[in-house]
Amino acid sequence: MTTHAFIGQPKPLIDGPVKVTGAARFAPDVYLPGVLHARLVTSTQAHANVRAIHTEQALAVPGVVAVLTAKDLPDITPEDRKRLLLARGRVMFVGQPIALVLATSEAAAHDGAEQVQVDYELLPAAITLDEALAENAPLVWPEGVPSRSGDTGGHGASASGGEVQETRRSNIAKRTTYKRGDLAAGFAQADVVIERTFNTPMVHQSSLETHGVIVQPDPLTGGLTIWTSTQAPFDVRKDVAEIVGVPESNVRVIGMTVGGGFGAKIVLYEPLVALAARAVNRPVRLVLTRLEELLATNPAPPIRIRARLGATRDGALTALEADVWVDNGCYPFELAGFVARMFGSFYPVPNFHLTGSDVLTFKPSASAYRAPGAISVIFALDCLLDELAQRLNLDPIEFRLKNAARPGDLMANNEPWPGMGMREVLEALREHPAWKNREQARAAGRGVGIAIGGWTGGVEPAAALCGLHRDGKLHVHVGSVDMTGTMTGFALMAAEAFGVSPDDVRVVFSDTDTAPYAGMSAGSKVTFTTGAAVVQAARAARQQLLAIAAEEFEAAVEDLEIVDSKVQVRGVPSKAIKLSELAEKTMGFDERYAPVFAHGRHVETTSAPAFNAQLVEVEVDRETGEVRLHRIVAVQDVGRAINPLAIQGQMHGGATQGIGWALYEQMVYDEQGQLLTGSWMDYALPGVTHTPPVFETVVIEVPSDNGPFGVRGVGEAPVIATAAAIANAIADATGARLTELPMTAPRVLAALRQSE
Amino acid sequence: MTTHAFIGQPKPLIDGPVKVTGAARFAPDVYLPGVLHARLVTSTQAHANVRAIHTEQALAVPGVVAVLTAKDLPDITPEDRKRLLLARGRVMFVGQPIALVLATSEAAAHDGAEQVQVDYELLPAAITLDEALAENAPLVWPEGVPSRSGDTGGHGASASGGEVQETRRSNIAKRTTYKRGDLAAGFAQADVVIERTFNTPMVHQSSLETHGVIVQPDPLTGGLTIWTSTQAPFDVRKDVAEIVGVPESNVRVIGMTVGGGFGAKIVLYEPLVALAARAVNRPVRLVLTRLEELLATNPAPPIRIRARLGATRDGALTALEADVWVDNGCYPFELAGFVARMFGSFYPVPNFHLTGSDVLTFKPSASAYRAPGAISVIFALDCLLDELAQRLNLDPIEFRLKNAARPGDLMANNEPWPGMGMREVLEALREHPAWKNREQARAAGRGVGIAIGGWTGGVEPAAALCGLHRDGKLHVHVGSVDMTGTMTGFALMAAEAFGVSPDDVRVVFSDTDTAPYAGMSAGSKVTFTTGAAVVQAARAARQQLLAIAAEEFEAAVEDLEIVDSKVQVRGVPSKAIKLSELAEKTMGFDERYAPVFAHGRHVETTSAPAFNAQLVEVEVDRETGEVRLHRIVAVQDVGRAINPLAIQGQMHGGATQGIGWALYEQMVYDEQGQLLTGSWMDYALPGVTHTPPVFETVVIEVPSDNGPFGVRGVGEAPVIATAAAIANAIADATGARLTELPMTAPRVLAALRQSE
Repeated sequence: MTTHAFIGQPKPLIDGPVKVTGAARFAPDVYLPGVLHARLVTSTQAHANVRAIHTEQALAVPGVVAVLTAKDLPDITPEDRKRLLLARGRVMFVGQPIALVLATSEAAAHDGAEQVQVDYELLPAAITLDEALAENAPLVWPEGVPSRSGDTGGHGASASGGEVQETRRSNIAKRTTYKRGDLAAGFAQADVVIERTFNTPMVHQSSLETHGVIVQPDPLTGGLTIWTSTQAPFDVRKDVAEIVGVPESNVRVIGMTVGGGFGAKIVLYEPLVALAARAVNRPVRLVLTRLEELLATNPAPPIRIRARLGATRDGALTALEADVWVDNGCYPFELAGFVARMFGSFYPVPNFHLTGSDVLTFKPSASAYRAPGAISVIFALDCLLDELAQRLNLDPIEFRLKNAARPGDLMANNEPWPGMGMREVLEALREHPAWKNREQARAAGRGVGIAIGGWTGGVEPAAALCGLHRDGKLHVHVGSVDMTGTMTGFALMAAEAFGVSPDDVRVVFSDTDTAPYAGMSAGSKVTFTTGAAVVQAARAARQQLLAIAAEEFEAAVEDLEIVDSKVQVRGVPSKAIKLSELAEKTMGFDERYAPVFAHGRHVETTSAPAFNAQLVEVEVDRETGEVRLHRIVAVQDVGRAINPLAIQGQMHGGATQGIGWALYEQMVYDEQGQLLTGSWMDYALPGVTHTPPVFETVVIEVPSDNGPFGVRGVGEAPVIATAAAIANAIADATGARLTELPMTAPRVLAALRQSE
Repeated sequence: MTTHAFIGQPKPLIDGPVKVTGAARFAPDVYLPGVLHARLVTSTQAHANVRAIHTEQALAVPGVVAVLTAKDLPDITPEDRKRLLLARGRVMFVGQPIALVLATSEAAAHDGAEQVQVDYELLPAAITLDEALAENAPLVWPEGVPSRSGDTGGHGASASGGEVQETRRSNIAKRTTYKRGDLAAGFAQADVVIERTFNTPMVHQSSLETHGVIVQPDPLTGGLTIWTSTQAPFDVRKDVAEIVGVPESNVRVIGMTVGGGFGAKIVLYEPLVALAARAVNRPVRLVLTRLEELLATNPAPPIRIRARLGATRDGALTALEADVWVDNGCYPFELAGFVARMFGSFYPVPNFHLTGSDVLTFKPSASAYRAPGAISVIFALDCLLDELAQRLNLDPIEFRLKNAARPGDLMANNEPWPGMGMREVLEALREHPAWKNREQARAAGRGVGIAIGGWTGGVEPAAALCGLHRDGKLHVHVGSVDMTGTMTGFALMAAEAFGVSPDDVRVVFSDTDTAPYAGMSAGSKVTFTTGAAVVQAARAARQQLLAIAAEEFEAAVEDLEIVDSKVQVRGVPSKAIKLSELAEKTMGFDERYAPVFAHGRHVETTSAPAFNAQLVEVEVDRETGEVRLHRIVAVQDVGRAINPLAIQGQMHGGATQGIGWALYEQMVYDEQGQLLTGSWMDYALPGVTHTPPVFETVVIEVPSDNGPFGVRGVGEAPVIATAAAIANAIADATGARLTELPMTAPRVLAALRQSE
């Protein structure tokens, strides 16, 4: 393995100090003179016709400037949630925005919103998957889901697997199927077959910072400047431009510090606030309250997986059948096919039949949550594997290793797996003392469970810039939002590629007007894609600098090196010029060299999957059902560790969210579709006290074929395996196999009673 | 000449609408919560020791938060005006800042400033050139001018000409000499010798917008964000960083819309405001009042030129002697050598002796004003030439043509003239009807005068960026401030180089954190240098785009063309893809091409001089001395006209400023050094009513060897010749030769009386 000077050294996050001292500027910190504060009026009904909206009393509240309803906004096709601006005629979930109150203060906006009266004509609603799938269920979109093209977005089925459009009108938005081999023959070969149904709930991303948007309209040019808490400034630009009806170049999106995204902050309220700002020709600011955040954003969908898995006595998987239902809420999220595909891909089975059904219900539409769908997949799949291993009396790691996918194996959609380290991760876990000595934990009355999850990762083109400045600092300029320490990673990568200390690298993130294009910070791809553009730019800048130095020294570029912030003739420290001096020769009247300033532009179409295995040691209180975590060991293949400290942070954070999924979190709706968990008093997030006293991370490096320095995306994989590992540990401790998340104390208690 | 699709077409300035509607944001429009407003307390004495500054009463004014004096600021060597932060012990001119009052409102700051009491111990002062040059004159810097290196910046003389450091302590900061040939022999050959002494006054740039700076300190990082009205954001960054003592990368300079610069807005109060903001740890805002602007900024220096010029009967110049004195004010401006050099360069003379003396006086230090020194040079030189032509009975244009420099001729400093069109400009003027038919004007009692001025232009490295966005717009990103329409010019140049309509180009100017490096917008070099980088970037981006299209079409790049916002196979409009569609393929999840995004980095060490000749038709009221302008014809070589409309604007604006120099403007100080022209009631700026009813511009194109598309800088040349042409027209009308600017009615009257 190549030796690197800087990457691989743990570096505290560059933006740590501004964040921990409160100096970082978030969207709500933007102050614009003349700004109007906005408050949502949201639906109190899951399904109703809106007969009238009475705004007079609200307008009488001192400070209220306007109350906008759908009639004040363009009548665009509400083809997705961000285009469902304000309810037009009908509401489809409790929390759906109906009106927007604009006032000169937050308090006035709040008071105004309380005075808006909505007349509803109640309609029957289907809240749960079962209700939505029932015969004669109330339809979320009786006339068909709105779409730009007029159809509902269905695609024809293909031979090996594909999407099947329902022809009968129902709440099934889409059904996708993947098949291989002969299912019946496969199950016939099996010595053991297990069938179970798993349920995972609606989970809210619950970032510390709620959604916040400020939009300033320019009456002259029709332009819009948007300050927003988003993972995806360029996507906000695209959607706002399209919805408002201006060219993208007229929209400037300034991505602010993001206080947590986890997939929820792509584009949501920016179009509404932009239209509101244009309607009143003043800046408008909407910062969601926690209640609005929980009621009216876009959580992870409830998922049900019924699966049947067969294996021979010697541990070979023979057949897999799985039906996946994803409760999309009121808009198609189209996750079920992907979930079904994942289900059949991690452990290639010769015979499988997988279906995924996206189901519409009268609830808020779902969106991404860190590794969308994967937690549910691994919870189901890895619990089945664990139970099979137990039934076959096989070592759970060896059983997984025997069946785990290898690079080149076909995924369920018949695409080959790119290079990845699933097996290496399992092997590393196998060698870990916590696994080897698991009998000690068992002797102490604890259970030890494992699971492994993987994330294929996204790809997207990206550009970046590097320039050398007069103080000798290398500036890296990117357009990708940092939520996970990517800026610090870029500093390390640029330092490595250019040849200076990371302390001499400054990473600048700017807005869509000035930044190089980068896609959304999602899909575990920022370091993998934007990072590659950064490395390319840094290398090009290095060549530019060396060419200048070569002219100064009258030497060949190949004979030069960069050492200690100087360019020197290789091995001759006495013949050296400081980077700052060289930069000076490129900046100023009559200077004779062009600035050191280079672009990188990158594209990559093959992803670099990352795997994360976890071992959990639990103790179960048999009287209360309470699960106490004693240890988590997380092992992850990161391809190449750029900043081990940031990776550890991601692994700790992911597993902690995994604990929430496993034991605490769920959005609960009653039979009328009313949200019962509308505050953090009711919605149970894990805190640091819920993490185990021993929380180990192990990083292994199976270099990717195509990432810069062999890197893989790190962000999503760490959250996937936790819930499954905890479930397997509970089973190890108690024999009880839980199939529903979260595994709250009452559910554990019930399972214990059942298994006794 | 190559045909161009877009350059050469008149295009209204892109930023015109935002400016004329008041939507443009200037520095004073920046609002920061918690900002403190600053007001200067300025010296009422030209020379005094400051015995005490009483701030108690000021601090008692409600709203006043602090009164800063030199003791609150770092004690740095005040080696130039921007480092003379607040007076430390001594004041050297009326208007010198002594204290800075910081308050929560502008009114409170003003009231506070009025309450600051300064105890002065008066010292003798030398206000005029004569006083400063007198034996035993009070010295502006008795201990030597402060400098970083400890010396006073002198350099040894060289053989052919150079700078001579005075050894005796005096107010002469620097003396520079240029010599060639045998002066006495040269004058002996002459048939006519004329000697005259010319004086031009201190003139204030008098932008509509005064200097304005807002600085926000970041207590955590020590960083500074600066919003300022400057021509030179990167220079502000450099100087503030050095003076405050932080790395340049910690300083972010946001150049705001500039409401006029003309050389006065490079770096002046930014360091003081930055230090004040750090001292109080709050944002501080200083926007000068008009009085402060006139008292305490950096106007053009008074210049005296005594010159003797000889020529033979057939019009050959034989000898030139000139002594130049530049009244630098309290700091060396080092202009005199340059003025002397210019004096000997436009019309090469075999024998010359030129000296330039920079003289210190107790007045504000001088700085650049559009074409620094050139107005004075041409006023003196062209009036002498005109008088010589008259005495020799030669046609004034033919006489100039006979002697005018040609490319390759040596300038006074023995450097060769680069390619330039001085002769072509004179020839074009010769053919103009206003010149050919000048007898008609004379018959109507008017005088017709001509003059020609040139500006060599500056050079400086620059970078730029071009990227193609999803709406098919090409974004150009630069770091050079636009004051003269350069953004619009960049749009035309990028459009031409890339192959789209200028309407599909968006030019983005940003701050020092995010913009590609560009030097100050000064020296008539923005289009010449940054423009070259823009063209380079646009051409590179075009190649990137064509490479993508080639892959899409499976065609060769050479077979493709860009037509009507599409890439098409040459001559096959049916095989075409819209730019917006191609851009989409570079931006988004799973897209397969890298973004179209390219840098340009440019350096050029040879300038491209520009010449502007003017013909003026005047009528002189012999009873009042009033000069009425009937016509100006300005002819300029622009190399290649990128945007004729912007060029015309520059030519109109320059000549209008020239009218101010010629007839109205002067900063008047009384014998105590008190400014008598401290408002626009007293300081006479020309308005549109002072321009002639006929104001013609003629653009000729003598392509430069090295500018993009052959362009030359346009900005400075138009102001140079006006005063000389008006003086020559007055002489033509009346026989009176004026030698002092401005040629106010009383002076004209006096000259008329003298010549009678």
